[in-house]
Amino acid sequence: MKLTILGCYSATPRALNNPTSQVLEMKNNMFLIDCGEGTQVQLRKHKIKFNRIKHIFISHLHGDHFFGLVGLISTFRLLTREVDLHIYGPKGIKEIVTLQMKLADSWTNYKLIFHELSSDESELIYESDDVEVYTIPLKHRIYTNGFLFKEKEGDRKLDIKAVEANNINVAYYRKLQQGFDVQNENGEIIKNSLVTKPGLVPKSYAFCSDTVYNESMVPLIKNVSVLYHESTFLDQHKKLAEPTKHSTAKQAASIAKLANVGTLVLGHFSTRYGNINVFKEEALSVYENVELAEDGKVFSFE
Amino acid sequence: MKLTILGCYSATPRALNNPTSQVLEMKNNMFLIDCGEGTQVQLRKHKIKFNRIKHIFISHLHGDHFFGLVGLISTFRLLTREVDLHIYGPKGIKEIVTLQMKLADSWTNYKLIFHELSSDESELIYESDDVEVYTIPLKHRIYTNGFLFKEKEGDRKLDIKAVEANNINVAYYRKLQQGFDVQNENGEIIKNSLVTKPGLVPKSYAFCSDTVYNESMVPLIKNVSVLYHESTFLDQHKKLAEPTKHSTAKQAASIAKLANVGTLVLGHFSTRYGNINVFKEEALSVYENVELAEDGKVFSFE
Repeated sequence: MKLTILGCYSATPRALNNPTSQVLEMKNNMFLIDCGEGTQVQLRKHKIKFNRIKHIFISHLHGDHFFGLVGLISTFRLLTREVDLHIYGPKGIKEIVTLQMKLADSWTNYKLIFHELSSDESELIYESDDVEVYTIPLKHRIYTNGFLFKEKEGDRKLDIKAVEANNINVAYYRKLQQGFDVQNENGEIIKNSLVTKPGLVPKSYAFCSDTVYNESMVPLIKNVSVLYHESTFLDQHKKLAEPTKHSTAKQAASIAKLANVGTLVLGHFSTRYGNINVFKEEALSVYENVELAEDGKVFSFE
Repeated sequence: MKLTILGCYSATPRALNNPTSQVLEMKNNMFLIDCGEGTQVQLRKHKIKFNRIKHIFISHLHGDHFFGLVGLISTFRLLTREVDLHIYGPKGIKEIVTLQMKLADSWTNYKLIFHELSSDESELIYESDDVEVYTIPLKHRIYTNGFLFKEKEGDRKLDIKAVEANNINVAYYRKLQQGFDVQNENGEIIKNSLVTKPGLVPKSYAFCSDTVYNESMVPLIKNVSVLYHESTFLDQHKKLAEPTKHSTAKQAASIAKLANVGTLVLGHFSTRYGNINVFKEEALSVYENVELAEDGKVFSFE
């Protein structure tokens, strides 16, 4: 599981601070999460192949999370993309893109499929053989979802000595990996757990931006490997967080602690703070495993 | 008259090539012309004060000319702008901006005034004490205007020796500068031309992008001080220019020659060409006074 931060600052794009966008690689999928202005240039800078992006998830319709989307869609067209593109985002996102295409008298030569979201409950919005994606309803000034990316339970590992000792035919190995009990050469049923071990622990990633401090998300993100939680403010500006429906670094860490996550990644920093290390220090006072997002940073979670 | 090129490449933004946007300073006005994705970052990089921009002119609704607009409007709001902002652009531009504001549940705290254009004839769209702006109807794949910025005739210069010799009271100097005949201390009428000289020659700037080769614009831009004309292609790709409704460097130079312009500035280069100097060489074979736009370049025309 690999996470590339293309932008992690709030509000407006600046020369050195990009608005929210990130790429999550999970089981050979490449998911683009949010798409602030300038995202396509960031993708180019980080040499991410445009055609590998087949699913784009937009948390909400504030500009710093999606103003780069229509340009990216348009660039895909100019580069004669043929691969389908799925867009998951709040109701209204289709109209925004469609109106601009219509007025430009153009349309995509590839299939553009919108999945508009409007539920206030968590829902499964994407599923493949090895990955599931759920929404995480967030509390912000407008309708907003986080996204939970989960690897499915992988194959069990054969305990090859035990398999051979139990006289199981090679033809049944795949069934064993899939967790089934099988019959051996002597006609006996062999319990799966006797001859296999658990496979790799499935990884999971929860993206939660933008949101006010909200404990009701905790059950949804319980024990995730990695939580990206917004921390627009420091505790000293806690009074700004509530009315703008944002969180502080301390609050993000509290959520991480309650949910018992593996790693907390902080992002969506207000550009009012010169040095973002203070976000980490503040969060570390509450939770021990904290990382800072940074434009261009790549995290590998093995 | 000062022209700052923020972006001068066609199609898609890249790490080093920005789509169309430029700032024209004329008689203390600061006009923003086109606003491709990333324009607000380019404005910051070139330290152009956001509040000095009161008029934005959008040529047409292809993304590389306006995808940065909604973000810029939104950033102005976040920076608590109070100064009015006028947007001139094709019909539909208001709906695009309004829809996105509505879905973000936000509106500007400053006055945002749209001037939607739909005429196929040149029209006066802005006038102040010292400047006029006219549309230049262009021929492109969708409805497109260029813009002609004209300084008004300035004050005449006093020939102070002649003024004194003619015994004219200081109270009449302003009237003389404005071109009127005045009465002197002896009660005689003094012809203005006897005691004044012409003021500075008014400058003019014509922005023509995007357009196919089109001689019908020539009368509108006759004798302008500076013509910015698109040259997406070189003559070797002339066959691409016609169907895409773009021009070659040679064609841009032909228009410059027919219109007898002071300086031709070439821009809107396709990124297929590694070295843009070939555009200049090609144009110079037709017209002698050619400059190349370049992202970040500042032209001063005195």
